[in-house]
Amino acid sequence: MAEVLNQAGIQELLDNSPFISFMGLQVLSLDPEQGVIVIKMPMRPEFERRGGTGQIHGGAIAALIDIAGDYALVMRVGAGVPTINFRTDYLRPASDQHLTATATVRQAGRSIAVVDVDVHDGNGKLIAVGRGTYSMNAG
Amino acid sequence: MAEVLNQAGIQELLDNSPFISFMGLQVLSLDPEQGVIVIKMPMRPEFERRGGTGQIHGGAIAALIDIAGDYALVMRVGAGVPTINFRTDYLRPASDQHLTATATVRQAGRSIAVVDVDVHDGNGKLIAVGRGTYSMNAG
Amino acid sequence: MAEVLNQAGIQELLDNSPFISFMGLQVLSLDPEQGVIVIKMPMRPEFERRGGTGQIHGGAIAALIDIAGDYALVMRVGAGVPTINFRTDYLRPASDQHLTATATVRQAGRSIAVVDVDVHDGNGKLIAVGRGTYSMNAG
Amino acid sequence: MAEVLNQAGIQELLDNSPFISFMGLQVLSLDPEQGVIVIKMPMRPEFERRGGTGQIHGGAIAALIDIAGDYALVMRVGAGVPTINFRTDYLRPASDQHLTATATVRQAGRSIAVVDVDVHDGNGKLIAVGRGTYSMNAG
Repeated sequence: MAEVLNQAGIQELLDNSPFISFMGLQVLSLDPEQGVIVIKMPMRPEFERRGGTGQIHGGAIAALIDIAGDYALVMRVGAGVPTINFRTDYLRPASDQHLTATATVRQAGRSIAVVDVDVHDGNGKLIAVGRGTYSMNAG
Repeated sequence: MAEVLNQAGIQELLDNSPFISFMGLQVLSLDPEQGVIVIKMPMRPEFERRGGTGQIHGGAIAALIDIAGDYALVMRVGAGVPTINFRTDYLRPASDQHLTATATVRQAGRSIAVVDVDVHDGNGKLIAVGRGTYSMNAG
Repeated sequence: MAEVLNQAGIQELLDNSPFISFMGLQVLSLDPEQGVIVIKMPMRPEFERRGGTGQIHGGAIAALIDIAGDYALVMRVGAGVPTINFRTDYLRPASDQHLTATATVRQAGRSIAVVDVDVHDGNGKLIAVGRGTYSMNAG
Repeated sequence: MAEVLNQAGIQELLDNSPFISFMGLQVLSLDPEQGVIVIKMPMRPEFERRGGTGQIHGGAIAALIDIAGDYALVMRVGAGVPTINFRTDYLRPASDQHLTATATVRQAGRSIAVVDVDVHDGNGKLIAVGRGTYSMNAG
């Protein structure tokens, strides 16, 4: 599919969402040909899972996965698409650092799309993976 | 399993987490015999998925599911247990209201537990379902 | 939704599939009002996961879950609907006995349906749970 | 981890399972360094989802995913490991041909491993993806 939104356009969409804006998500790069988008989530105090651990709560990571998967499709569709369902697997604790989500479209059909999301910490370690199904009907 | 934490003890654990405290989660009820806990998430402006829609972003709902599933086990184990993975299915948009997550332990073995979570809106409509697997080794 | 197929009609559809016919699935009961169908899978030698264990391979259980979820919707739609995705959780080994899958429709919208499946062994023990998403567009 | 079973040893393990033997699975290649195994599932009449379609039932594909994920770990552990749970996403109908499952270990910890599985048809088209969690405790 053709690119319908560039990086600035996608960042503007992200910022327009109160939830995503609160999370502070930033588009780092995008590759519409390959269906890949990279989104950064900076650490913020509200993300800490237990005071003093410096570890990000898994709930914030799941939200990042949902959003990154969505925006791999936004890049093509031009607007947010509804998540049907998604799975989050946690591999390692996420330390007191920014996280980077790399979302890759595995298939985008007329009605359904499947996206994989890998989440790395600031040291490049894979800390979680996600897989989501999105509805292309209501895009 | 015997109850090891009562409602006040669980609420204190919730409040001790910066992330959960930010989300404003409140224990409404618990049934250690049946392995059921009910947790309320009040609406707050940062949860809105797009300005003016009054709809809660799915990422906040996924985080609620992860936490509610965890605390159905906390009730028994006495401390948070790591999420291995979980699935979130969205059924309907969540309107500008509080949500209620009802988490039910389906099985709690020595190493693995499986928990189902139903999420209802303020009108009692089922808006999302979750299913998570948690590690009982590191409880 | 109205019932469009009765038990004999559903059994005929099951038998028409070479795969399902090989698996020997039998409709035990159905409740179109509640969106519940119960399907039995008899043990057969090809299902054994390792010779001499008498335990059913998880792959056969996953197939049973997929099919039971589908037929909870067939009961309403009148034809098989495509599975979009599903999750299988194994709780206990399945002994050398028939299994019973109880599939319950959690939501059936115009384009998407979500179905939960509980699998019990011949002693009534819960040995696996499934959750699937099906497409209602191509029913 | 070091390789503990070579291709012939893995094929022998596969053949020892009545279920897997019935499915006719064959190891095509393995790469213990990268944690990748490729397994072929030939078409057989019992796999057909509806008579005359020549399409493989999704239940057989799910079973293939479960097994391929398992054997990506067998290659390292030397014995089958229990599946905790797995997700199957169907992308396209699978035509009357053999399928090939490529399973890649994403993480193998002391207690839990996560494996991704891509399933291609005989024309090299991606027809399904799987993601499974396995227990390394009881390997």
